[in-house]
Amino acid sequence: MLQSRLFAKTSKNFPKDEESINAKYLLRAGFIAKNSAGVFTFLPLGLRVLNKISQIVREEMNALGAEELLMPALIAKSYWEASGRWNVPVVYKIKTDREEYGLGWTHEEVIKIIADQFILSDRDLPQAVYQIQNKFRMEPRARSGLLRGREFLMKDLYSFHKDEGGLGAFYESAKSAYLKIYQRLEMPVVVAEASGGDFTKDFTHEFQALVESGEDTIFHCSKCDYAQNKEVAKVKAGDTCPKNCGGEVKESRAIEVGNIFRLGQRFSSWFMGSYGIGISRIMGTIVEMSHDDRGIIWPEAVAPFRVHLLALGLDKSETVKENAAKLYETLKAKNIEVLFDDRLVPAGEKLFDADLLGIPTRLIVSEKTGIKIELKQRREKDSQLLDVAEVLQCLNS
Amino acid sequence: MLQSRLFAKTSKNFPKDEESINAKYLLRAGFIAKNSAGVFTFLPLGLRVLNKISQIVREEMNALGAEELLMPALIAKSYWEASGRWNVPVVYKIKTDREEYGLGWTHEEVIKIIADQFILSDRDLPQAVYQIQNKFRMEPRARSGLLRGREFLMKDLYSFHKDEGGLGAFYESAKSAYLKIYQRLEMPVVVAEASGGDFTKDFTHEFQALVESGEDTIFHCSKCDYAQNKEVAKVKAGDTCPKNCGGEVKESRAIEVGNIFRLGQRFSSWFMGSYGIGISRIMGTIVEMSHDDRGIIWPEAVAPFRVHLLALGLDKSETVKENAAKLYETLKAKNIEVLFDDRLVPAGEKLFDADLLGIPTRLIVSEKTGIKIELKQRREKDSQLLDVAEVLQCLNS
Repeated sequence: MLQSRLFAKTSKNFPKDEESINAKYLLRAGFIAKNSAGVFTFLPLGLRVLNKISQIVREEMNALGAEELLMPALIAKSYWEASGRWNVPVVYKIKTDREEYGLGWTHEEVIKIIADQFILSDRDLPQAVYQIQNKFRMEPRARSGLLRGREFLMKDLYSFHKDEGGLGAFYESAKSAYLKIYQRLEMPVVVAEASGGDFTKDFTHEFQALVESGEDTIFHCSKCDYAQNKEVAKVKAGDTCPKNCGGEVKESRAIEVGNIFRLGQRFSSWFMGSYGIGISRIMGTIVEMSHDDRGIIWPEAVAPFRVHLLALGLDKSETVKENAAKLYETLKAKNIEVLFDDRLVPAGEKLFDADLLGIPTRLIVSEKTGIKIELKQRREKDSQLLDVAEVLQCLNS
Repeated sequence: MLQSRLFAKTSKNFPKDEESINAKYLLRAGFIAKNSAGVFTFLPLGLRVLNKISQIVREEMNALGAEELLMPALIAKSYWEASGRWNVPVVYKIKTDREEYGLGWTHEEVIKIIADQFILSDRDLPQAVYQIQNKFRMEPRARSGLLRGREFLMKDLYSFHKDEGGLGAFYESAKSAYLKIYQRLEMPVVVAEASGGDFTKDFTHEFQALVESGEDTIFHCSKCDYAQNKEVAKVKAGDTCPKNCGGEVKESRAIEVGNIFRLGQRFSSWFMGSYGIGISRIMGTIVEMSHDDRGIIWPEAVAPFRVHLLALGLDKSETVKENAAKLYETLKAKNIEVLFDDRLVPAGEKLFDADLLGIPTRLIVSEKTGIKIELKQRREKDSQLLDVAEVLQCLNS
């Protein structure tokens, strides 16, 4: 992709009315645009990141044996009334002369009615279906960029079982699939016990990414996997781990990037489980976790491009122009996703924007590099001067 | 995919309260589920079709040089007020204590505001961006299955140009891209002139699929490409073609599966174009156009699977079981998308469901076929008895 052709551009300044790191960087770098409080457009670079996160989640859901479907956002009032959730405060309501709808913020009600049509006996069980779909939540204080929006992208998985044992076993498989997803996203998480709300007396599990800017507080062991959300924890920071592992309880701020619920028979006569992952929230969380004072540092798995190729002094040197264009074609021919900064702007602006955009590998072609190429990882300080073969080798390893 | 594991199943009967062919077949075959009037879930098989249509559209939009982005459905009242479209009757409105939103049924208002941020001078033009996103329309009479829904999937493309000439040239390229899309979908369309509404005094163009069940009426020449929507036509059936080609004007019913508008400066100081394709409507239109009295006949490009493998008499014959399982593995290894009917149900039920589902190529393994395989195209009457190598050759050609 030629950077000169990109629809969205970086901004000279940070947005004025945003406090969160993810909103500041994503808006300034041109990954998202703000339409109103808690409502964003994913610009082309941002959509590439969002799609990569979705695809990782999709692959792990498919590996779990779940089938993808797509439910609507318009959910008739009768669905919510059947479950007693019409008056949950987060529902955006629409009233016309003929109908009333609540916009979907979750889909237990809808999938239950659909499953009724197809699950006729125990022989039709177990089943698991998921969707990656826009959700709507009336948040009184939409804030923190992609972390708490009014419209956001979710993956929601629902499973159906004939008994508690079947649900329990699938619940553990789903937990493993979730851990694999966060691992692929290079996002360390803690699995914290949390309250089941009105769904279940059992604990549910939250996948918490430890980030200083997180809204949640968790208590977790320094040594073992013990972790609880503040809401349910009976320990405090400095206590010895209740699992007697010899570790000490620490208190940390965290962002909830997933949750899994054993719903049991709350919605149906079968045993149901419900499993959520906030796709757009994960995008925001990655920025909160992985940045420096110059910009974003995307993990390779979700970066909008693998390589950012900068041609410096394009307008002054025919050689630079030719070498850069040739390298661009070589990378494309090798199926390496590359953003080529072919803009006629000062070198300083290109270097500044490259750090802001946060693409993992930066390649520079300039008068100074001559027939060589300067390669630098966004995460690292030092650069190397390599020839084309060495660059390709480096990108393949 | 094993058919025995599918979440959704075919129904014994047609739905009672549906009149349109597409709703009847898609519901009965388990491609979609109805949630309320004009609101549907895309079940796993249906989502596969929808995604294939989306991908064809996406590829042709990318080839046109347009970039994909994703705008929100929640659009603040101020956007609609700026364009004077807040009180358009199709807008679903949401009012909370703090905000008012109209759900997006089109996105000229939103993309205009975003483009303002990035298009600072003529040097930033031309630009073209598109999205594939759920739209919402308050249809008083939601009907005809996927043809006229309240929530539906659209591709909307917007282009920006410095002058009328630039817009005109891109408009023609978009028209060609559209024709390529319908060609890939195996959907013959007529390009009909239509009214520009309050946007433009020029004609706009509609892509009309000629189907008896269509809502629109068009007049078109039997010989040349002359075609007009009834709303603007000054001819009647039987007239000689106004283009003097010697052809005769015919009157046909049709479904509008795309439209392109030269908006000019209606929304901005640049020259804008707006180009829509109803993705879910196309799915319904394909069923209206391509079916027989036994079920759907999917064109290969959008079929949920390329091959439907039926094992008949599975429970009675170990050989059938082994041969079918082996063929299933062979097809998967060759990356041929295959649905394997491994259910323990009578042969008649499998054959009936295969016709209903409409997958292009049916393969039968049974006691009768022995080590051979019966291959039948859904479109054709006759079948052939082939060995595995011949089947693979047939699928590759």
